Amino acid sequence: MSIEPEIVDFAQELARAARSETMHRWANGVAPTGKPSSSGFDPVTEADVEAERAMRVLIETRYPAHGITGEELPDRAAAGPYTWSLDPVDGTRSFICRLPTWVTLIGLLEHGQPKLGVVDAPCLDELYVGHGTDAVMIAGGARTRIRTSGCAAIAEARLSTTDPYLFAGAQAHAFEQLRGAARTIRFGHDGYAYARLAAGSIDLVVEAGLKPHDFNALIPLVTAAGGAIGNWRGQADCSDGQIVAAASQALFDHAVGVLQSAA
Amino acid sequence: MSIEPEIVDFAQELARAARSETMHRWANGVAPTGKPSSSGFDPVTEADVEAERAMRVLIETRYPAHGITGEELPDRAAAGPYTWSLDPVDGTRSFICRLPTWVTLIGLLEHGQPKLGVVDAPCLDELYVGHGTDAVMIAGGARTRIRTSGCAAIAEARLSTTDPYLFAGAQAHAFEQLRGAARTIRFGHDGYAYARLAAGSIDLVVEAGLKPHDFNALIPLVTAAGGAIGNWRGQADCSDGQIVAAASQALFDHAVGVLQSAA
Repeated sequence: MSIEPEIVDFAQELARAARSETMHRWANGVAPTGKPSSSGFDPVTEADVEAERAMRVLIETRYPAHGITGEELPDRAAAGPYTWSLDPVDGTRSFICRLPTWVTLIGLLEHGQPKLGVVDAPCLDELYVGHGTDAVMIAGGARTRIRTSGCAAIAEARLSTTDPYLFAGAQAHAFEQLRGAARTIRFGHDGYAYARLAAGSIDLVVEAGLKPHDFNALIPLVTAAGGAIGNWRGQADCSDGQIVAAASQALFDHAVGVLQSAA
Repeated sequence: MSIEPEIVDFAQELARAARSETMHRWANGVAPTGKPSSSGFDPVTEADVEAERAMRVLIETRYPAHGITGEELPDRAAAGPYTWSLDPVDGTRSFICRLPTWVTLIGLLEHGQPKLGVVDAPCLDELYVGHGTDAVMIAGGARTRIRTSGCAAIAEARLSTTDPYLFAGAQAHAFEQLRGAARTIRFGHDGYAYARLAAGSIDLVVEAGLKPHDFNALIPLVTAAGGAIGNWRGQADCSDGQIVAAASQALFDHAVGVLQSAA
């Protein structure tokens, strides 16, 4: 079943509500004169909790039968097929360093399957929305349809991962093989890297240790833009948190092949 | 001798000239529909060359006795004490991935010593200027005096480096010790990390393999904001490209101690 337009609009309303809780804390919380917080309360924790709370209030009012699962607050059970997956600040380390590429992740699951994904980058004023085969970026008010690059060859791929130290043992060795084969690599962009993959400027993202609130929003966005996403063994199931996202099915298959043969 | 206000203004004029050559290539060069370039010419190379050329024209017209040393074009000898150091796009890998934290670096040397530093982040509309004890950020038109965090303890430090794979052998081992001791680490921000250090949201940057056009602009900015910058042995000389920049002299000394004892 496709997602109703009013729910797509509502997901963007959630992103705006989150921005109003995160942006001023990001800009002011890390004061240039001293510690990350002068109040004794971590600004990123405060932004996380308050943004999730703001989104929950909107969901509970508009769609009381929808479930909610978030990073910060207890789950709310669904009375029906829909559950929202919320990660108010993905990239907390960027947030505390006042770097601009942390994102807010909003996913909508239907019978447990991610169907709608929103990635919002407030500092960049870039909002990405994907569902079905419809993927758009809304930047500075302008709406653009986005597609992945379609890149199919690892040797041409721009690879991204958040932190190479997150890989251990055989994982680290497998990633090392992939890194050696790719055209270039960038680090440090959390969920934003998947948005750039959907928009065609990154070709491959490989990570480990992700939780459902980290990937639920990314799956519909990447697939709607023409990309492929799944686990390191090439399956669609992402529940083990080992994620491969690629600009094409061919690149996904190649990357899985490299990771598997190295493992 | 302190830098004349008209030269400080002129350096900002150079940054604006560079923006007019880089920004549209960044935004359009990496098209969401395909390859990084449809013209057959690499957009980052084109942005690099054209931005350096635009800055050179301004310098040669306004200050014909000044020397110029850039990343892309041949050196121009100085007829006097001043030489400009230009790096139009620092962070080319971010540029080709359409990530926002690449910067333009503009330094002014007097008798070979860096005295004025400009770091411009066009995508973020953040311009940083440092000379003497005067450091400012101009963001969205608003001018703010900036200082480092003053952080003195490695255990509290937000550490940044562009790419951990740039370290080899003993270097890699030494960096590993520092990473284990720091509060958190971020990757991937090239010269922008030093601007955030000057502005107080990153506390420590450790890198290797930098060239003069990479660090000439950073030295006056970091020191003007109250930070310390030098090589891995604790000396002010950065010519070997192994750089430590810290929010305080104490943190610089601690970091050098860790790197030296691990080496």
